[in-house]
Amino acid sequence: MTDINPDDKDVSEHVRISRRKFLGSSAILAGAATTGAAAALLTPAAQASTGNSSATVELGELDEYYGFWSGGHQGEVRILGIPSMRELMRIPVFNVDSATGWGLTDESKEVLGENAPLNGDCHHPHMSMVDGRYDGKYVFINDKANNRVARIRCDIMKTDKITKIPHVQAIHGLRVQKVPYTKYVFANAEFRIPHPNDGRDIDSPENYRTMFSALDAESMDVAWQVIVDGNLDNTDCDYTGKYAYSTSYNSEGGVDLVGTMRDERDHLVVFNIKRIEAAIKAGKFTTLPGSDVPIVDGRKGSKLTSYIPVPKNPHGINTAPDGRYAIANGKLSPTATVIDLHKLDDLFAGKIKPRDTVAAEVELGLGPLHTAFDGRGNAYTTLFIDSQICKWDIEKAIQAYNGKKVNYIKQKLDVMYQPGHNHSTMGETRDADGKWLISLCKFSKDRFLNCGPLHPENDQLIDISGDEMKLVHDGPAFAEPHDCMMVHRSKVHPRKIYKRDDPSFATTVARAKKDGVILEQDNKIIRDGKKVRVYMTSIAPTYGMNEFRVKQGDQVTVIVTNLDQIEDVTHGFCLVDHGVGMEISPQQTASITFTADRVGVHWYYCNWFCHALHMEMRGRMLVEKA
Amino acid sequence: MTDINPDDKDVSEHVRISRRKFLGSSAILAGAATTGAAAALLTPAAQASTGNSSATVELGELDEYYGFWSGGHQGEVRILGIPSMRELMRIPVFNVDSATGWGLTDESKEVLGENAPLNGDCHHPHMSMVDGRYDGKYVFINDKANNRVARIRCDIMKTDKITKIPHVQAIHGLRVQKVPYTKYVFANAEFRIPHPNDGRDIDSPENYRTMFSALDAESMDVAWQVIVDGNLDNTDCDYTGKYAYSTSYNSEGGVDLVGTMRDERDHLVVFNIKRIEAAIKAGKFTTLPGSDVPIVDGRKGSKLTSYIPVPKNPHGINTAPDGRYAIANGKLSPTATVIDLHKLDDLFAGKIKPRDTVAAEVELGLGPLHTAFDGRGNAYTTLFIDSQICKWDIEKAIQAYNGKKVNYIKQKLDVMYQPGHNHSTMGETRDADGKWLISLCKFSKDRFLNCGPLHPENDQLIDISGDEMKLVHDGPAFAEPHDCMMVHRSKVHPRKIYKRDDPSFATTVARAKKDGVILEQDNKIIRDGKKVRVYMTSIAPTYGMNEFRVKQGDQVTVIVTNLDQIEDVTHGFCLVDHGVGMEISPQQTASITFTADRVGVHWYYCNWFCHALHMEMRGRMLVEKA
Repeated sequence: MTDINPDDKDVSEHVRISRRKFLGSSAILAGAATTGAAAALLTPAAQASTGNSSATVELGELDEYYGFWSGGHQGEVRILGIPSMRELMRIPVFNVDSATGWGLTDESKEVLGENAPLNGDCHHPHMSMVDGRYDGKYVFINDKANNRVARIRCDIMKTDKITKIPHVQAIHGLRVQKVPYTKYVFANAEFRIPHPNDGRDIDSPENYRTMFSALDAESMDVAWQVIVDGNLDNTDCDYTGKYAYSTSYNSEGGVDLVGTMRDERDHLVVFNIKRIEAAIKAGKFTTLPGSDVPIVDGRKGSKLTSYIPVPKNPHGINTAPDGRYAIANGKLSPTATVIDLHKLDDLFAGKIKPRDTVAAEVELGLGPLHTAFDGRGNAYTTLFIDSQICKWDIEKAIQAYNGKKVNYIKQKLDVMYQPGHNHSTMGETRDADGKWLISLCKFSKDRFLNCGPLHPENDQLIDISGDEMKLVHDGPAFAEPHDCMMVHRSKVHPRKIYKRDDPSFATTVARAKKDGVILEQDNKIIRDGKKVRVYMTSIAPTYGMNEFRVKQGDQVTVIVTNLDQIEDVTHGFCLVDHGVGMEISPQQTASITFTADRVGVHWYYCNWFCHALHMEMRGRMLVEKA
Repeated sequence: MTDINPDDKDVSEHVRISRRKFLGSSAILAGAATTGAAAALLTPAAQASTGNSSATVELGELDEYYGFWSGGHQGEVRILGIPSMRELMRIPVFNVDSATGWGLTDESKEVLGENAPLNGDCHHPHMSMVDGRYDGKYVFINDKANNRVARIRCDIMKTDKITKIPHVQAIHGLRVQKVPYTKYVFANAEFRIPHPNDGRDIDSPENYRTMFSALDAESMDVAWQVIVDGNLDNTDCDYTGKYAYSTSYNSEGGVDLVGTMRDERDHLVVFNIKRIEAAIKAGKFTTLPGSDVPIVDGRKGSKLTSYIPVPKNPHGINTAPDGRYAIANGKLSPTATVIDLHKLDDLFAGKIKPRDTVAAEVELGLGPLHTAFDGRGNAYTTLFIDSQICKWDIEKAIQAYNGKKVNYIKQKLDVMYQPGHNHSTMGETRDADGKWLISLCKFSKDRFLNCGPLHPENDQLIDISGDEMKLVHDGPAFAEPHDCMMVHRSKVHPRKIYKRDDPSFATTVARAKKDGVILEQDNKIIRDGKKVRVYMTSIAPTYGMNEFRVKQGDQVTVIVTNLDQIEDVTHGFCLVDHGVGMEISPQQTASITFTADRVGVHWYYCNWFCHALHMEMRGRMLVEKA
């Protein structure tokens, strides 16, 4: 080991971090016990089973938790098994997926809408709840790139609704109402724009505003929007159902980097849901061109909101499972701010000032971004700049903030490197069980085999079931597991094959009925002018049709119904050289539309391996001159 | 355990397999030692380190092998670390990728071509070789869905060339020339079509033909094509550089399932590369409309090819690392056919008959699909229907075929379930090291947490370093890891940051030069009628431009050059609500073109986490009325 000063700014970040890791300096400086961090760094994965919890999932055994992982700007949602950290499934959402035909099939286009962009940037997957507990019904996810919110049905693990949020840019923070049930999905828009954004006020950034939106979780319509000051970042809500709150940076209204960093404090904006609903019911709202979503004014001074000053460009906001506290993470301040949620009623009653809700504001380390909970009174905060997880005691932090000489920091664990979100098993619900923590590290540096200039992220699994955090797994991940959540398997019960009345292909079923076609048995062609609908069944290893004949220029829709009833016998339909491919799982119907633009013989084949004679499962589209 | 007969057809496949597994009946029937299979089934992953090789990769340690995994009909190539089985990187190829902007950026569109389909179906990734050993330069991959072959540069792990193969449908089998070096990439087209496919012969399937194609590995042009009989399936080549050979099924010329299964034998078609080259040099070729690729006739009776009869709808063809034998896998026959490659000279000299090249034809079990090698004389064949890997001794199989009473089968190992391809570490080269074997299982059934009707595949890792195969890992995978290969890390040396003269953005560099722009320092706008080029730099956490101004209807190209030089500091450029997003890794230049179709303020932001102030890295596109 060469003699490198980890604080030498001319040394690469990478080397400094490695060096710091070796010295354990950050942990020492923070006054925490160093044994945990140092021990974890030297703990091989193989020793996980000798730790507090076992990270070993034996061959053929099932994981204990479903992990729902954001694919970030990759656009999908991923299901991981926890603690094995194996990726079990990809759920296409804001991306195009060649395997399932997401973005290609008629059914997926119905969800995505006309002229859907080919990209997305999803951040925060959250499951619907009843009384502060996961109900296993839906997972919601935002799209920052194109202002959307999507819903995944957990019975089939497919996206069933996507809503474009009007009047805003960059839907970033997303959470669901916890109590009494997920009536609303809360979505922050980050960037401030003119309203309407029709060319006015381009050069008057002081007139730019952004909005907080609430979607109806069942209809997925936008229920209402709230105009706010500042840029909205992350959001969460309480366990009474009365309040939601979002971190807000750029109180300064800046449009460049320096402008957004001037002030030492920005805000946590608290939304009074009942008052907002009452205002709308009373007609006290406006609308903007292009939608009839009711919009209320929640800027500073409004009775609908309250702005609690917190330091500085705050990022994550996380409600503790006890329902008493929410933690705002300082990002550009080394602090976390503990908000006493029990004081929000008094705040809105005008009995106290916003800062009176602050139960504690304590130093944790550099770059606090997000906090997770174990249900035993501990908080786990990611320190982006320090590349650490700080474990701290909330009650002791409050005591320290009130002047008592106590050490609220229990441990700092080095992670590799630069963690953004973290999440604990069941930690955003009343059922927080304190078994596993995930640290989603933005950089992996040389932690994995070099795969070129683009590096994987590193999703690290940490055992938090004992007194000390123990790092047990490095999980390389393609960009970008922005956030995740982990749900006990007892809460999730997907179907193994489709029901024939599944709503995901209801439109196709209705069209077949109109065409007089019985999907479960018919193999026939319906011609409707230049539109041709080719209905066929599939059962391994054959399609119901070995060939079909169309004219050049026909707009052809192929509708396939998979009659197989055996779990896992998914078929595909791929038409060579036409950009046509899709999944048809057992008892599913799927359809895809294309133009038969070239005469000649064009083969289609099953592209989902289904049988020993899978290669032979195919047929011909014969295209004749029109 | 209830009393279930595993051969009862009314019992679900799943239950039958489980039951067979319990009974070990298949292994017993085959006469193999049952201890291996039974033991492996009961061996937990945790015991891997007590096996022959250690599957444990300690925290922070690197994997020993790069695994290149086909993404199948998902369209990408994946890099896995072996033996950890962690997915390290996704390489977009025939898919659209929102994170990197593959399919969206100008640079990727240059590779993909105009109006590229949004789907693909890639099967066989193979690395370029010199003298039968991996050279770490390229990985090639086919697209069955849209008749393409792509090349991945292993220095940056990005796709740099895609070639559309003319006159054929469904490019399936793909391998590279092993010796003296990878001059050619061999690509099988599977489906038979009329030539030209212009409407003629639609109803005369007897006139349909398919072709074998050879691409120049450097230029990626199609060097020549060979018309053949039957449907081509998989391909491989020898260690002299003289011969390539492809399995061919459907000798019958059928166009439905029954028609393709009538005959008991189909063929291994051997291509005499020197004779084909000579024929083309002598001008003895034809062309077809739409390309000038020379086409030779290699149908039965041609001197350029030889058709070796092998049973039945054969699938995989695999050359042993000793260079002496190639194994054709019977699929609908329970046999593997061992071809003595040393006899091919005599075959083409007319001294022997095609079947005289068969050194052995031995029973292995039901549904043999592919064979891998350990370099110690053993072959490992996937048995699709039996859900097993059969380990057998090639020399003993030859002895048995010649009448000697020897047991050539060493072990049968149950895999979960229905394996397609398998691959051993370095096993398709002279460097076969017999450490690890992958079984790519098509079905996972209930092997993982239930994620809905669509199930993951199961990529299983098997330790083959000792006398017995040991199953050590279940790897769930999104559709469809069709095939894979594993390369020792000593062979692969990717760059950590881009060189400024990287050819992947050479066109963009040339355009900048024409515009008088120095990419590494300039932030400026070039207007060229309605075309606007916005050149900007990026260095964490800022873009070189906080804003730029265009007119409604302008066709805008944003060109970003990432000046960061620190490994892993990738930036993104995402323009909200315009379907615009891309990766710019350290020292890379990337560009993307779109229409500024809406007036107003439109924010762009960095979508690759780069810095503590990443959220603040953004700017405004101000669109004014034209």
